[in-house]
Amino acid sequence: KVILVGAGPGDPELLTLKAVRALQSADVVLYDDLVSPGVLDFARREAEKLDVGKRGYRFSPEQPTITAKLVALAAAGKTVVRLKGGDPAIFGRATEEVEALQAARLDFEIIPGVTAASGAAASLRASLTERDLARRVQFVTAHGRDGALPEDIDWRALADPKATTVVYMGVRTMRELTGRLLDAGLDPSTPAVLVDRATW
Amino acid sequence: KVILVGAGPGDPELLTLKAVRALQSADVVLYDDLVSPGVLDFARREAEKLDVGKRGYRFSPEQPTITAKLVALAAAGKTVVRLKGGDPAIFGRATEEVEALQAARLDFEIIPGVTAASGAAASLRASLTERDLARRVQFVTAHGRDGALPEDIDWRALADPKATTVVYMGVRTMRELTGRLLDAGLDPSTPAVLVDRATW
Repeated sequence: KVILVGAGPGDPELLTLKAVRALQSADVVLYDDLVSPGVLDFARREAEKLDVGKRGYRFSPEQPTITAKLVALAAAGKTVVRLKGGDPAIFGRATEEVEALQAARLDFEIIPGVTAASGAAASLRASLTERDLARRVQFVTAHGRDGALPEDIDWRALADPKATTVVYMGVRTMRELTGRLLDAGLDPSTPAVLVDRATW
Repeated sequence: KVILVGAGPGDPELLTLKAVRALQSADVVLYDDLVSPGVLDFARREAEKLDVGKRGYRFSPEQPTITAKLVALAAAGKTVVRLKGGDPAIFGRATEEVEALQAARLDFEIIPGVTAASGAAASLRASLTERDLARRVQFVTAHGRDGALPEDIDWRALADPKATTVVYMGVRTMRELTGRLLDAGLDPSTPAVLVDRATW
């Protein structure tokens, strides 16, 4: 069996009870670089822990290797936890792994996690939505397949003054992204926060 | 002390370890209708549990009463947990309570939670983002102050075919919302899922 587990934003205390139980049941844990070290302490000492060296939503040439490993371990009867930073559904690139597990007719489950935006907002004591001011919150990655800013972004939607925008993986392309948002009409006085390793 | 706690989407196992510890420390728990019953079982038996009868992001005339109660209990030296469905930062209307606690110079903390969209995606084994197909995920409420569809929504941003849109509290205005999205250019063949009580 494979369990895809959202490890939350960093603080091990932000793991869900379900994630902790999954970790405690695992024979093997495959984890991304975005998972903070304390999280792995919930796995059994005798469990095999494999750093698959991937930064979640960033493009990684290793993805086919990771997927093959996941399938091979599960097919061999191991209980495998695939640990992803944040929530697997949000820039977690779960689809390749899910499709491979389905194709191999292997049993799997997904456990959601606290996404980084929620972790950061709690630390800042801020809301991501606000009646009348921000009816919409949007999460976007500023990191395409080759690491550059993707070209097919709806800049007008991102520049909407009635929305809160959270840019995941935004450091590398921040200057270019900011320029494009201002070109699209974003008010230069729009408040912004730069967050690194929320809740770590 | 007041702790604003995200209770997650419903399944008590999706509480974080930090949320469970907060519940176990509480003298009083104020909870919304959107919190599923099993979640309250983590509170101590002798803790006072008050249903403040509010459905999170929906407008409620009771908000000033809830805020006043929160402040009064904390000022009286109680450890108060304010339990909100999902994540407090996402349609959790935490701001009124946060501002009142700050004005009264009371100590408080926010514990993030798994938002309903993440819970639903995990149950559906789906991702909310997808490289090349959905670089952006947006959460919106289709419920304004008076319960009607808000007028100041950026319909074009919602109709973007390169985004996943999650409508919170969308049942009541669904027909109107759907019409407006189609008017704004949304492809009528866009796949959609209706989710009620994800993970409950």
